[in-house]
Amino acid sequence: MADVMPSTRQASITPIDGGITAATGFRSAALHCGIKAKADALDLAVLAVDTFASMAGIFTTNLAQAAPVLVSKQHLEATHGIGCAIVVNSGCANACTGQQGLADAKRMAEEVARALGCPAEQVLVASTGVIGVALPMDRLVSGIREACSSLAHGKGSDAARAIMTTDPFPKEHAVRVTTPRGAFSIGAMAKGSGMIEPKMATMLGFIATDAQVSPALLHRALVESARDTFNAITVDGECSTNDTLFAMASGTSGVTIDEELYPALVDGLLSVSEPLALGIVRGGEGATKVIAVSVYDARTADDARQVARTIANSPLVKTAVHGADPNWGRIVAAAGRSGVTFDVQRMTVRIGGILLFENGLPHDESAPKAAEILQRDTVDIEVSLGGGDASATIWGCDLSAEYVRINGEYRT
Amino acid sequence: MADVMPSTRQASITPIDGGITAATGFRSAALHCGIKAKADALDLAVLAVDTFASMAGIFTTNLAQAAPVLVSKQHLEATHGIGCAIVVNSGCANACTGQQGLADAKRMAEEVARALGCPAEQVLVASTGVIGVALPMDRLVSGIREACSSLAHGKGSDAARAIMTTDPFPKEHAVRVTTPRGAFSIGAMAKGSGMIEPKMATMLGFIATDAQVSPALLHRALVESARDTFNAITVDGECSTNDTLFAMASGTSGVTIDEELYPALVDGLLSVSEPLALGIVRGGEGATKVIAVSVYDARTADDARQVARTIANSPLVKTAVHGADPNWGRIVAAAGRSGVTFDVQRMTVRIGGILLFENGLPHDESAPKAAEILQRDTVDIEVSLGGGDASATIWGCDLSAEYVRINGEYRT
Repeated sequence: MADVMPSTRQASITPIDGGITAATGFRSAALHCGIKAKADALDLAVLAVDTFASMAGIFTTNLAQAAPVLVSKQHLEATHGIGCAIVVNSGCANACTGQQGLADAKRMAEEVARALGCPAEQVLVASTGVIGVALPMDRLVSGIREACSSLAHGKGSDAARAIMTTDPFPKEHAVRVTTPRGAFSIGAMAKGSGMIEPKMATMLGFIATDAQVSPALLHRALVESARDTFNAITVDGECSTNDTLFAMASGTSGVTIDEELYPALVDGLLSVSEPLALGIVRGGEGATKVIAVSVYDARTADDARQVARTIANSPLVKTAVHGADPNWGRIVAAAGRSGVTFDVQRMTVRIGGILLFENGLPHDESAPKAAEILQRDTVDIEVSLGGGDASATIWGCDLSAEYVRINGEYRT
Repeated sequence: MADVMPSTRQASITPIDGGITAATGFRSAALHCGIKAKADALDLAVLAVDTFASMAGIFTTNLAQAAPVLVSKQHLEATHGIGCAIVVNSGCANACTGQQGLADAKRMAEEVARALGCPAEQVLVASTGVIGVALPMDRLVSGIREACSSLAHGKGSDAARAIMTTDPFPKEHAVRVTTPRGAFSIGAMAKGSGMIEPKMATMLGFIATDAQVSPALLHRALVESARDTFNAITVDGECSTNDTLFAMASGTSGVTIDEELYPALVDGLLSVSEPLALGIVRGGEGATKVIAVSVYDARTADDARQVARTIANSPLVKTAVHGADPNWGRIVAAAGRSGVTFDVQRMTVRIGGILLFENGLPHDESAPKAAEILQRDTVDIEVSLGGGDASATIWGCDLSAEYVRINGEYRT
């Protein structure tokens, strides 16, 4: 047994530059077309494949889905996951915009398709920004035509800025995955939960790899890697109309992903997704600290996730962390109302490794030490449910008066 | 059909003075025994029945249940709902206190029982305050003995103050219910969600009536009336270790509640419970506005409640109301992620009666008028799901920077 290494160990992963266009076979363009008021604010990006790519997408589970979400789902289905480009705008979510919104989202795909010479169904669409407002199609169509004529390699960082709304910083990451059968690259970018003007945490994420992988396997790897990254974060428990995560695989590295190399692909996706997901949390509205809630010794991973998510979303836990209060009682109470059944007498609660609750009783003598740890900008909350061997981690952030200020301002 | 009035219409209900001791057959005492630091702060109350009473209780659904909750459940079960007194302290929740906490809660009941000459199982116990701290039993036992020797009629208002923690105002209400078969009274008091020192929204509610009613029927009426009052409010979606609602019926009015008069009892309970429940919301931490979320045209009442609760607990909706922003998009998105299935195209959203979203499209021309209405201190949000005839209302409050300040302060 000892000489059979898991195939994941056969891959070495190293960070590289280049963001979303780090992998070969992809070009991008980003510009200001006039959706955002500020004259130099990039608000449109096009990502194009040199030939064509396997495509996969994960979308918001909200019943209220924006037009670009509905159109992209249709396109992925119609093409069985073969595509040539993605077009993204920021500044307007094209959500709650009725039939006109659907027509506008389709038009965005059509304009890209016309410029690139591919079927419109091979173009995916994403939008982020204010909802209930129609896209300024004249400006957008001109912008798309201009962008498609200026596509270039190595310009991923501009695209990462063009998808931002009120994100405090751009989020991009790329890695080189070296396997015994060759190396491939994965580039990624994301935007997060700035909600002042966009009003909702329209999380968008984009991943581009030059691995050769079928649409079905790409989708499976995307779902698997998102579970513990983009789907394991929360800023305020809200779920938007536009949340979208796309992956594209150009195949130009010549490395074919089969079942043997599948773990290497997943590891590579995890490697680009985790820093972007954490970046979304760290850039969450009013956030001053990242909270990593890990739940251990649960009966199932779903149980662990549910308890971790309830703790990470608890307003009382979030405000306690904000105030550096080692308030284990709020953590116990949040776990207790999570809907998961466990024995509170066997539960333990640690903050920053400091044991604060065990056998149904507090260890308040350790509270001052935990309070010190809570001054850090990343806080670990560890909960054992004492009845199983499953675990999960959810990343959240604290709740500050700044969150209220940002979201309580009357929209202009 | 027209000449058969529902029996509920046969009862007329009028407010009366007297709070929890408004009904005949009940005495109370309240004093400062020394749990709260402030010398004149009442922190102990005893409610006693002149003879004995039917008793019923509803408790927190949190897995982490405080000692007084566990002991009161045992006592209700052991006596099949016959009791003689309730003892309540504020300032210490006796939660997460292990075996010592259970012994202390039992001791509280035993001391009352010894003073009143009844079995300890006939005494129910409630506590509210800081968790993870043991009760100061010496002071508490002295206080219980003193309280039991000074029980008197007509002192309900002192009891309503003694159960407060950081509530901004005491909450009591009483009514006289007149039926064709005689009149009975119902008095009630509650404390709400001040969490600075107590750390959790330990909602406690107490109802005392002189109607003659079996424990089983009293329990049924309590559950039914709580569903749309105490169980239809939310301050921050948290659920505490100590939440308790008790009802006692002395029978001294001579009016016997049977199936015919049952609706009159429920109406009476609703009449005292609704103002107390709304008082808890209005006194919620940092709350500046009450938000009444009504969901109509749902397939089931449970669906309507779930959508209403998701909207009322949404941080984005709560901050929008705080900022008087008629942000219908956040309401649509919260409903869409509630887990209830409905057709967004048939949904309508109104704020203060102003239609803002219909047929999947906004009515932003009405936003300024809605923004004016949002300046009021009670805000109605009305949502139609457009597919059924069930409805429900949940009362919540806005989210302010003051909430963060209150709950982010390090406990001293």
